[in-house]
Amino acid sequence: MGGILRILVVAIVLAACANATSATDALPANSLAVTASSLGQRALSDPAAFDFVASLTTEIGQRLAGTEAHRRAVAWAETRLKAAGFENVHAEPFTFPAWIRGAESADIVGPAPQQLAVTALGGSVATDAGGIEAEIALFRTYDDLLSAAPGSLNGKIAVVTQRMVRAQDGSGYGAANPIRRHGPSEAAKRGAVAYLLRSLGTDHHRLPHTGALNYEDGVPRIPAAALAIPDAEQLERLAAKGPVRIRLLLTPTVRENAPSWNVVGEIKGNERPDQVVLIGGHLDSWDLGTGATDDGAGMAIVFGAARLIAGLPRRPARTIRVVLFGAEEMNFSGAAYAQAHQGEAGKIVVAGEADFGARNVYSVQLPAGAAGSDFGRALDRIVAPLGANLDRRPALGGGDDIRELQKAGVPVVSLRQDGLDYFDTHHTADDTLDKIDPRQLDQAVAVWSAFIYLAAASDVDFRSLAAAAK
Amino acid sequence: MGGILRILVVAIVLAACANATSATDALPANSLAVTASSLGQRALSDPAAFDFVASLTTEIGQRLAGTEAHRRAVAWAETRLKAAGFENVHAEPFTFPAWIRGAESADIVGPAPQQLAVTALGGSVATDAGGIEAEIALFRTYDDLLSAAPGSLNGKIAVVTQRMVRAQDGSGYGAANPIRRHGPSEAAKRGAVAYLLRSLGTDHHRLPHTGALNYEDGVPRIPAAALAIPDAEQLERLAAKGPVRIRLLLTPTVRENAPSWNVVGEIKGNERPDQVVLIGGHLDSWDLGTGATDDGAGMAIVFGAARLIAGLPRRPARTIRVVLFGAEEMNFSGAAYAQAHQGEAGKIVVAGEADFGARNVYSVQLPAGAAGSDFGRALDRIVAPLGANLDRRPALGGGDDIRELQKAGVPVVSLRQDGLDYFDTHHTADDTLDKIDPRQLDQAVAVWSAFIYLAAASDVDFRSLAAAAK
Repeated sequence: MGGILRILVVAIVLAACANATSATDALPANSLAVTASSLGQRALSDPAAFDFVASLTTEIGQRLAGTEAHRRAVAWAETRLKAAGFENVHAEPFTFPAWIRGAESADIVGPAPQQLAVTALGGSVATDAGGIEAEIALFRTYDDLLSAAPGSLNGKIAVVTQRMVRAQDGSGYGAANPIRRHGPSEAAKRGAVAYLLRSLGTDHHRLPHTGALNYEDGVPRIPAAALAIPDAEQLERLAAKGPVRIRLLLTPTVRENAPSWNVVGEIKGNERPDQVVLIGGHLDSWDLGTGATDDGAGMAIVFGAARLIAGLPRRPARTIRVVLFGAEEMNFSGAAYAQAHQGEAGKIVVAGEADFGARNVYSVQLPAGAAGSDFGRALDRIVAPLGANLDRRPALGGGDDIRELQKAGVPVVSLRQDGLDYFDTHHTADDTLDKIDPRQLDQAVAVWSAFIYLAAASDVDFRSLAAAAK
Repeated sequence: MGGILRILVVAIVLAACANATSATDALPANSLAVTASSLGQRALSDPAAFDFVASLTTEIGQRLAGTEAHRRAVAWAETRLKAAGFENVHAEPFTFPAWIRGAESADIVGPAPQQLAVTALGGSVATDAGGIEAEIALFRTYDDLLSAAPGSLNGKIAVVTQRMVRAQDGSGYGAANPIRRHGPSEAAKRGAVAYLLRSLGTDHHRLPHTGALNYEDGVPRIPAAALAIPDAEQLERLAAKGPVRIRLLLTPTVRENAPSWNVVGEIKGNERPDQVVLIGGHLDSWDLGTGATDDGAGMAIVFGAARLIAGLPRRPARTIRVVLFGAEEMNFSGAAYAQAHQGEAGKIVVAGEADFGARNVYSVQLPAGAAGSDFGRALDRIVAPLGANLDRRPALGGGDDIRELQKAGVPVVSLRQDGLDYFDTHHTADDTLDKIDPRQLDQAVAVWSAFIYLAAASDVDFRSLAAAAK
């Protein structure tokens, strides 16, 4: 009996007998759906995931790619994976231009001298050693900035204070992302000498949110930083009263060809080990906090799920490969992984990355065509009691680090976690262990473990399902 | 008819006719209780208090006593009081030793190098220019530190991580206060070279809470700083694994005989102007935030209440004096005021200070003997519909700035505001305007305005009531 058919039969029996617990005893002990369900139950009381992120954030702390701390994190991760029984544990090196934060400050020079809470955007160039002092041009929306005429910002510091929408699915961040990534070059095109934005965040604390920018080729590169949200609102009030002058100082540096590593560990499949279910998170973090929710938690979830599966009496047919990516925040590790594994895409059954915090999974998006399949229906029945539901919409993407794999034809999955408060602390000094609720983290491990196990133990073929759905 | 009797009669009529609104029309237009009630109603939709704190925190920002910003705040306050119709507006100078923050940083040197979020305690001495590096001795309670033997902390940095209790009445802060004020000297007595405490706060943000310490005479003065709460918990986890070394750098300075001012404005009484109802807040703030809840809001409340009374067709009998104290955070302005006004205590009918945030008043504590008086009963009936109740217990104190007046025999009142979240942002960079809910602020203005008006327009004699109650 093939894997999918087996799942279907078990799922139908499970559904029929939902209120007759003794009936499940009659099922074969190795039935995939039963095992997936029991993995989920065990995950709900397994301390391994929280222990993982507690140890990493305490014993290493921040681990910006390119720093000595990240190198220690790589060694920590290899040790941790080996100790948990993973096989083929190794670190795959690559190089990238490491951006390292320097001093950073912003002060209102007039009319009311005061300090502002700011942090440089990742990739920002430095100011002059003495800083830049200029009058600001404040725009309450990004569209207002884009509507400004060329030359209209000559010599000014452009400030965009557009608010970000709080949303469970994080859609507010996606919508606001161009303000951070492209705002610096858009401001520069119009003559600005520096760029400040209201942090892309949903909190009201004096802790600015960093994050990467993307300079446009051929446009002058101007220094760029994020204002804490109360500070952006302070500037709005002051700018409404008259001209405001700011002095901005940023001294970041770049180290070309810095080393980083994607750390890999596997649970080898016992029937078709060359077929790979690839799951990951990213080991690097921003430098302001300790990277607890971004992305200690994500790694902890896939680690915790895979570890439970490794502890089963019988391994799944396919190999489960955990990849802890090494430079996600600056967008380098996914491409490095894809390049190092060119030609292997066909062996990857499915790829998924947990990189959206530490809260519960409320929705699962499978590759196109899979939601309505036997696999999808079986998974839906298993995760529904955990509070997650199968989304009929396919996963559009699975995470920054697997985008290149997706482009190479690898099916991707998206297990969506509750992100209502994710952007309260995202990319700030506040991203620390105390923000993680172990109970919610464990629910995410439960859902991931069910998905991973079903994908690795069955013969589901997401490529065929996608082709059939067209 | 005397003031108290008049209040009583009006209050009884009001109570009897609570559901017959037309009946109140029959009351004399100048009835005190009716006027006090209508003041409260007007306060609920009066933007003046919020405008006050918005302007101050935006146009001045932080205003640590002894800084140029505080000097600007004094000028701002004089202008503001005059514009609002206050009389006898002036600034009363005094001098004090101003403590000015310098650089501050703390880093875990080993076993896991990482930065900690710290801020120097007000009054702390500086470290050496290169900082202090030492192993920590961590105590989870202050009692554990006090139990340590002399010499047992030789050469170490003492760290106390006791938690503070969240409480509506702020009692958690009072209980924990010795950890900050006296902990440095207690640690020094036992040989410590520096002192760190878990911030006295109820949040979980990387924003440490500053506040003043009190060195004990004859004990070595060691540098002292507060850890942000997530950082204190990080140290607890690390210390549980083994020795932890920290490097602490603090470079504050002290300027002796720095100038400050208590800013005064009055609404002169039209019958007994020499009898004074003294109400205040403090104009100085800590330097990390913009002093919105501490104590921009408190000043805004008494300003807003007094301003409403100033706008009445008929002034109260007694003078209302607003004092904006100039160095509360370092505990100098109350003594300066009392010293400058020695011998005048007998003319002060009652004193009160609003210095507990921006939320609603839920309880009013009058001087001893007043709760059961006609005055107390009348006030209770007026403030009950606003959500505040008369506490049968007398006010034990009325605020740091009026403690010396209280010692000199001045009766004090305490209008207690909801402090459940006051210590989330207290003394941190997060004390900014966005933390204030104008609706709750206005409720506090309403209750204060009723109290102030009744005290100033009646002939209540709190000293006699206290004597009679003995």
